[in-house]
Amino acid sequence: MIKKLNETENGDCSKEENGYPCLIPAQRILNLISKKWSIQLIHILHEGKVYRYKEIKERLQRGWKKEKISDATLSARLADLTKEKIIIRNVFPESPPKVEYSLTEKGESLSKAIKYLVDWTIGTCHQ
Amino acid sequence: MIKKLNETENGDCSKEENGYPCLIPAQRILNLISKKWSIQLIHILHEGKVYRYKEIKERLQRGWKKEKISDATLSARLADLTKEKIIIRNVFPESPPKVEYSLTEKGESLSKAIKYLVDWTIGTCHQ
Repeated sequence: MIKKLNETENGDCSKEENGYPCLIPAQRILNLISKKWSIQLIHILHEGKVYRYKEIKERLQRGWKKEKISDATLSARLADLTKEKIIIRNVFPESPPKVEYSLTEKGESLSKAIKYLVDWTIGTCHQ
Repeated sequence: MIKKLNETENGDCSKEENGYPCLIPAQRILNLISKKWSIQLIHILHEGKVYRYKEIKERLQRGWKKEKISDATLSARLADLTKEKIIIRNVFPESPPKVEYSLTEKGESLSKAIKYLVDWTIGTCHQ
């Protein structure tokens, strides 16, 4: 039996317990990243790019064109990533309201980690 | 309208067409990686590790203990990754037969790309 990690109320944990590394937030984020289109979505917004919903959808369709992304999925994914503070949703009080999405500082750092994976997958095409 | 990529019969494509990079195999692999537990599974086997089914399951449960992985899911994921030549399944003709899983050369190179992502997610715990 592995001893339960010393979790705090918000699900964080001490760095290590009994030599076993903390993986609880890692699990939460990996589950989010593992949801379809998350990787592509983060990749599209990297390096300070700012897009409106329609632009994001168009870019996803263009880059990964064998599969369509539904509005329900794209909205859910944007909401997930916003909740996890990876994406920020900027609403401008215009009429009609203008909404733009970009990566937070945390999201930019995640996008760098994801880039290796995206580059690897693109690279496999050309071996 | 974006012109269709110049695909060959097996779904490969020329490196670039009209300045647009080939992403078709990347999409197939990202879809696979995006399936639940793929990332953790590849990560567990990295650096030449060789495990039997039960050992893999135990390590997944131990590392990501808030969620259980079912046998159906784990078997499906191992089959997916074997088909994509990321994992190799070695069967030893013993009685009862012994089956071991490890990463292929392709899988090891993918595991290196994934390591940045795993390290990032573990790192977010301790900021």
